Amino acid sequence: MRSIKLTIEYDGTGYHGWQVQPNVKTVQGVMEGKLAQITGERVRLIASSRTDAGVHALGQVANFKTQSSLDARSFLNALNSLLPEDIRIKEVEEVDESFHARFGARGKMYEYRIFNGEVPSPFYRHFSWFIRGTLDLARMREAAMKLVGRHDFSSFCSSGSMHVTPIREIYGINVGGRGGIVFIRIEANAFLKQMVRNIVGTLVDVGRRKLTPSQFGRILEARDRQRAGIAAPARGLFLVRVNY
Amino acid sequence: MRSIKLTIEYDGTGYHGWQVQPNVKTVQGVMEGKLAQITGERVRLIASSRTDAGVHALGQVANFKTQSSLDARSFLNALNSLLPEDIRIKEVEEVDESFHARFGARGKMYEYRIFNGEVPSPFYRHFSWFIRGTLDLARMREAAMKLVGRHDFSSFCSSGSMHVTPIREIYGINVGGRGGIVFIRIEANAFLKQMVRNIVGTLVDVGRRKLTPSQFGRILEARDRQRAGIAAPARGLFLVRVNY
Repeated sequence: MRSIKLTIEYDGTGYHGWQVQPNVKTVQGVMEGKLAQITGERVRLIASSRTDAGVHALGQVANFKTQSSLDARSFLNALNSLLPEDIRIKEVEEVDESFHARFGARGKMYEYRIFNGEVPSPFYRHFSWFIRGTLDLARMREAAMKLVGRHDFSSFCSSGSMHVTPIREIYGINVGGRGGIVFIRIEANAFLKQMVRNIVGTLVDVGRRKLTPSQFGRILEARDRQRAGIAAPARGLFLVRVNY
Repeated sequence: MRSIKLTIEYDGTGYHGWQVQPNVKTVQGVMEGKLAQITGERVRLIASSRTDAGVHALGQVANFKTQSSLDARSFLNALNSLLPEDIRIKEVEEVDESFHARFGARGKMYEYRIFNGEVPSPFYRHFSWFIRGTLDLARMREAAMKLVGRHDFSSFCSSGSMHVTPIREIYGINVGGRGGIVFIRIEANAFLKQMVRNIVGTLVDVGRRKLTPSQFGRILEARDRQRAGIAAPARGLFLVRVNY
């Protein structure tokens, strides 16, 4: 069996997330259908992350096993000609049979986009969280720095999750702004359920001056989901890349 | 009667252009419906340009007359709460009764966006023209400079148009690139029918080395639509702003 690694970009607006579910359109479901068409096999995709409904990807990674003899370039062309325009394959690579997109991931980067202005933009309505009024980015940065390193992130983990441990290591957080768009990039070894959206929701409370950076730090230390702010909406979240 | 000026942003993807037409959804049609709801009057909008189906606006300008006593702020809030999310009112201003969004326009800026790469992006699929392979931007700039000034633009005017004169003055053209997106900004006193899309289609032939900048100059001089390239697709075009 050959093992193929895909790097995938998708606009998650029209999908109920990555993972196959009965009776709804998912990215995995659509892609497995096209792979079955191409290979004549029943193909199972393994992705680095099961992105939620409405979440986007600039560089999702998935792999599958096949007996097909198609080369990487032909897989790329065949998939891109069959897939809908809101899913594009950016790279195809033949990898070692031991490669596992989920268990092999050593780090991931997510980006969250906020549209910060007086009137929401029609162009960013599916790709950002609209927040009226000015966000204090310097305060948000000061608060965000408290997350960097190895911590118990229970305060930012949504309920219903099944994690072996709530400990994760954040390698870096960047809070930036350009032309009304605020970007929050977080790179970590791995993420808990809805961790980025819970962090962003609480950082926005800091940016709006409802919380001080010190209070934000105490929320992290409390290890209690009740203490953090709301989860930021899915539509502003992008899985940027996965490292192996 | 009071005269109200609106500055409007819209994602044109779901519309058959600006102008009211029977049995199809247009930006003007949707907006006039909401204005009728707000004012209780039959309101007629006059816009600076009748953008084509699929064309977007960052700063379309339109005006209307009303007997309503609502202030500018209330018009903005009422419209934005009733309109669909792909149309947003950015500014409302009470203007002199002599103001006419179409005949009063002294200049306009359009921007055309090309997504230039190996694989099209799901996020720009409605907002750019995808072109595979590298475009030579320096050559495109050299060709574009030949358009600046007062010229007969018949070579770049689509048939079926009813213009008093094909003479227009281009104040400036900017060809730039950032992260795979090529921007072509054109500022002129006014534009002929599909003039930007015809110019961009022909500039892309220069960027692909199918035409030299000198040949491009001779196409302008020929004043013959048969000589120019194809019209670039509507989805990459944005009306950026209108000056009065």
